[in-house]
Amino acid sequence: MYHKGFFISFEGIDGCGKSSIIAYLNTKLNTNNTVNIREPGGTLISEDIRAMLLDDKHKDMAPETEALLYAAARSQVVKQVIKPALAQGKVVLADRFIDSTIAYQGYGRGLDLKYLQVLNDFCTGGLSPDLTILLDLEPEQSYGYKKGLAPDRIESEGLEFQRLVRNGYLQLAASEPGRIIKIDAAQEVSIVRELVLKHIQRVVGKY
Amino acid sequence: MYHKGFFISFEGIDGCGKSSIIAYLNTKLNTNNTVNIREPGGTLISEDIRAMLLDDKHKDMAPETEALLYAAARSQVVKQVIKPALAQGKVVLADRFIDSTIAYQGYGRGLDLKYLQVLNDFCTGGLSPDLTILLDLEPEQSYGYKKGLAPDRIESEGLEFQRLVRNGYLQLAASEPGRIIKIDAAQEVSIVRELVLKHIQRVVGKY
Repeated sequence: MYHKGFFISFEGIDGCGKSSIIAYLNTKLNTNNTVNIREPGGTLISEDIRAMLLDDKHKDMAPETEALLYAAARSQVVKQVIKPALAQGKVVLADRFIDSTIAYQGYGRGLDLKYLQVLNDFCTGGLSPDLTILLDLEPEQSYGYKKGLAPDRIESEGLEFQRLVRNGYLQLAASEPGRIIKIDAAQEVSIVRELVLKHIQRVVGKY
Repeated sequence: MYHKGFFISFEGIDGCGKSSIIAYLNTKLNTNNTVNIREPGGTLISEDIRAMLLDDKHKDMAPETEALLYAAARSQVVKQVIKPALAQGKVVLADRFIDSTIAYQGYGRGLDLKYLQVLNDFCTGGLSPDLTILLDLEPEQSYGYKKGLAPDRIESEGLEFQRLVRNGYLQLAASEPGRIIKIDAAQEVSIVRELVLKHIQRVVGKY
């Protein structure tokens, strides 16, 4: 799919440092030309869906329902925010995208990957990131685990779930090495930042 | 899929008289053995989704988002309400189910039917109604149109949209005559009630 802008997604288990890296990138990139989104969210509808997904009172949510709600939030942000931004030539930084569905609902919850790929196609209209940064971390090294922070509904799944998710990400990175760059997020934060920035400048520089 | 109970869905354009027929059936059937659901809704999560779908402030909802939200609500009610009820041998009366997705989001909004069929499979786990009553009506004869009632987000689409939806239902009925029984809902209400009750007793009687 042709578009003028550049679409970069950030992936990894909970507490791998995505949002801190994205905040750092916003100090380094031309913010007039950058659009930030986080999944689920980014539009009025998607933020309403986000609130439902993270609400602890929805503990009995079926895995299929969860996957469909993420896809619903994504289809709205693709149409309302990402595609218009790319058409204007902007750089879109997305905190999670299609790979989260495969890693969390597929590898984590055990839903059929073939169905999830169809869901991803349907909700994105075939739009895929130009570059995906995978911040790879063992669950025991994640921020929330170290700090003992109060978990939301998804994060409260525990270490075993995060291990399944991490394994999913590693499978994805192995199957799409051209798009997904795996970075060891257990390194010194300044090194991680430098690596991420270098990869982004390498590809965005082409535009 | 084997189950002991009986699953009946009611379909048709807005204002075709589904809820009034279902209310009537509840006076005729053994209510201890009957479970009523309406789509979207029927669980805490599904009712939250229903509120989002019908909210007029979400006018810019993408058709894909709408289809995914209906599927999300459905997957939750299938798992939490319909499957357990059927396993207990109950008769489930559903105000809308899978055919609404095909008629509204497919024929009405123009989304690809193949994707919608995958969505239906995914959110139901392959569960299909044993019997579907299609209350067929021309849009001009519908209750809301006649009464000039304040429309919600979906109903406010207008007559042309309802015509597309009705056409979708007629296509579905033609393609699955064994499951879908089409009843002319423009007839005298007592005749419609009698016909619906007869069809239901014919099939539920077997159980």
